[in-house]
Amino acid sequence: MPITTLKAGFLSDFSATKALFHLPKGLVYLDGNSLGPLPRSVPQRIEQTLRDEWGEMAIGGWNRAGWMAQPRTMGDRLSRLIGASEGSVVMGDTLSIKVYQALAAALQMRPERKIVLSDSGNFPTDLYMAKGLLETLGQGHELRVVVPEEVADVIDESIAAVMLTQVDYRTGRMHDMAVLTETTHAAGAPIIWDLAHSAGALEVDLASCYADFAIGCTYKYLNGGPGAPAFIYVRPDLAENAKPALAGWLGHEAPFAFDLDYRPGDGIDRFRVGTPPIIQLAALDASLDIWEMVSMADVRAKSVELTEQFIAGVEKRCSMIDIASPRDSAHRGSQISLHFEHGYAAIQALVARGIIGDFRAPDIMRFGFTPLYTDEADVEAALDVLDEVMNSRAWDHPEFHQRAPVT
Amino acid sequence: MPITTLKAGFLSDFSATKALFHLPKGLVYLDGNSLGPLPRSVPQRIEQTLRDEWGEMAIGGWNRAGWMAQPRTMGDRLSRLIGASEGSVVMGDTLSIKVYQALAAALQMRPERKIVLSDSGNFPTDLYMAKGLLETLGQGHELRVVVPEEVADVIDESIAAVMLTQVDYRTGRMHDMAVLTETTHAAGAPIIWDLAHSAGALEVDLASCYADFAIGCTYKYLNGGPGAPAFIYVRPDLAENAKPALAGWLGHEAPFAFDLDYRPGDGIDRFRVGTPPIIQLAALDASLDIWEMVSMADVRAKSVELTEQFIAGVEKRCSMIDIASPRDSAHRGSQISLHFEHGYAAIQALVARGIIGDFRAPDIMRFGFTPLYTDEADVEAALDVLDEVMNSRAWDHPEFHQRAPVT
Repeated sequence: MPITTLKAGFLSDFSATKALFHLPKGLVYLDGNSLGPLPRSVPQRIEQTLRDEWGEMAIGGWNRAGWMAQPRTMGDRLSRLIGASEGSVVMGDTLSIKVYQALAAALQMRPERKIVLSDSGNFPTDLYMAKGLLETLGQGHELRVVVPEEVADVIDESIAAVMLTQVDYRTGRMHDMAVLTETTHAAGAPIIWDLAHSAGALEVDLASCYADFAIGCTYKYLNGGPGAPAFIYVRPDLAENAKPALAGWLGHEAPFAFDLDYRPGDGIDRFRVGTPPIIQLAALDASLDIWEMVSMADVRAKSVELTEQFIAGVEKRCSMIDIASPRDSAHRGSQISLHFEHGYAAIQALVARGIIGDFRAPDIMRFGFTPLYTDEADVEAALDVLDEVMNSRAWDHPEFHQRAPVT
Repeated sequence: MPITTLKAGFLSDFSATKALFHLPKGLVYLDGNSLGPLPRSVPQRIEQTLRDEWGEMAIGGWNRAGWMAQPRTMGDRLSRLIGASEGSVVMGDTLSIKVYQALAAALQMRPERKIVLSDSGNFPTDLYMAKGLLETLGQGHELRVVVPEEVADVIDESIAAVMLTQVDYRTGRMHDMAVLTETTHAAGAPIIWDLAHSAGALEVDLASCYADFAIGCTYKYLNGGPGAPAFIYVRPDLAENAKPALAGWLGHEAPFAFDLDYRPGDGIDRFRVGTPPIIQLAALDASLDIWEMVSMADVRAKSVELTEQFIAGVEKRCSMIDIASPRDSAHRGSQISLHFEHGYAAIQALVARGIIGDFRAPDIMRFGFTPLYTDEADVEAALDVLDEVMNSRAWDHPEFHQRAPVT
């Protein structure tokens, strides 16, 4: 592939990255904010991992193929995309588990405070995991959930920890990470940022925000595949002192000493838990090769162009639709959401015509714009179909109202 | 493959299953108790999942390819191997995480009791995770760890829960699951069985033992590949009442309603946490096809033959070695462990000669016997090399004493 010769700098033209993805024929895929498409290099990379490593080395793969180190080496590769320093990110588990670890560590910092603050724009599993942890702790903590607009106003010295998803999964509304981190620190509390809709979608600068904890998944914008492992970032000074709630053997200082007592590993290593998913990591590794070719600033600039193009088209051609996402690109992520009473049916009608977006209750039609493989022509094609579906009421057909078990 | 035509009954000759595995050329692989070898069908199965599902369906795979249901469908396939009823097993996460879930649920049953009993033959991560949970609970629980032989004697009505690994990872010593489960129940407490070295190694009958919880991994005897997902079994009457500590969205009654409040799903579903690792599950699925061809009774009978053959050979040819595993096959799993002061070096010398076993501190040489792909000729070949290494002191060479970071 000629592209690899460009690795010294960054690609400026995303048509080159688009060619690196397998996009289902005849579809415009605007759902990479839910599951990124298959990088063409993944099948061969996994085949190598299977045949050359698992097949030929078997148990020896843990050392000889570097499997044991991959949660860290892959975390380091990812760290550039979220503005984290090397050695501060580790891969593993699922985002839900990483929420639990981060919040458990955060709550150790202010044991006398009993309020965990979040907002109703957080992804539900973050709230569920937090609630589960608080009940497990049984120390009378309260999970206080306010609307996103109120968060800044209610952060005060009663707050033990703030946990927020930077980009709202439904609307694409984006919190100001720098400002809210500073506000939280001014109140003497740590903050946890969920980057599920940020990593690979926009520029994140955890280190310069002095963020405490961050977590995210790699199957959305990062294209790691279905069930790709999550990541956790812990600011190095905090990692050194955190006591892991999920004290798994691979977070032990010396896992293969098989001591009966747990001694946490150095820094971020203590946020490892169990055996890493090597086959999933191979897929992510291949995807990260593509990410090394681009700068997040270029990705973000292109994302803003695509979302502006989409908004302008919707406003011009589909006046019956309200735009749910902020109009100001500085306040939104890389998706555009539309309010429409019959949104579920409309999404089905779009999907039937090859435009892949998704629906989120109660009335959100959601479209992700992912510059690595989405271009202006895709946006225009999506607008043409949306125009037809909305203006001819093509959604108003019984088959489009039948709900599938999951979307 | 002609073998699939035999699926109505079970294979009685394991030479047919051996042909279904890729075994590294020139090696005798006696480490399937640590990482099972590659089933030949795995690369193609994963290729299908990648190209036909992730590639062509993208987000649609969650419904159309049945991804969302796989933790349950795969759990059902596995349940026969451990004597569990359908609908009582779910796949996901790692064994460490599943320990945490099981113990958290177990401790809800006897909130007034404060002692968790385990033994020094338990795998360390089980103890670490338990300790981490008890500290998170902060209710004054104590983790009491006794030697394996004492467990039965110290179970009394002060015990909140017992957690044991059925087969000791170092020695292969096996607890009597039926007896200890009954003893624990007589004391009014639940028991958690770690089946890491049992599932696929011997006949387990969770349902008729009326075991409360069981957990295990699928990368050892079950050949699911490096980082394959773990499983958890919860007796159905308990699952209905358990309150999950790790309250992830895929354990929610209606994950895609995106409610702000958690409502646990039905039964075992509530032990799901986050997004399942679909690529790893594809590997496991291919491996489970092989397991459907055999009966655990036949596997166990063959395992006993192979371990007896190995013990007899060691006793006859290597008198300087003490056998660490129980001599009575009724009291051991599917591995044989040997005490030898220079065990680390001896294992390196064996590995250099193509006999793959492993070392566990302080002085254990460990060999797994896995009938699906290990036969009498392999055992004889291993004995020949062991004889040479021990009787010629081939281990006594500087290069064999250099420790690799992990084994």
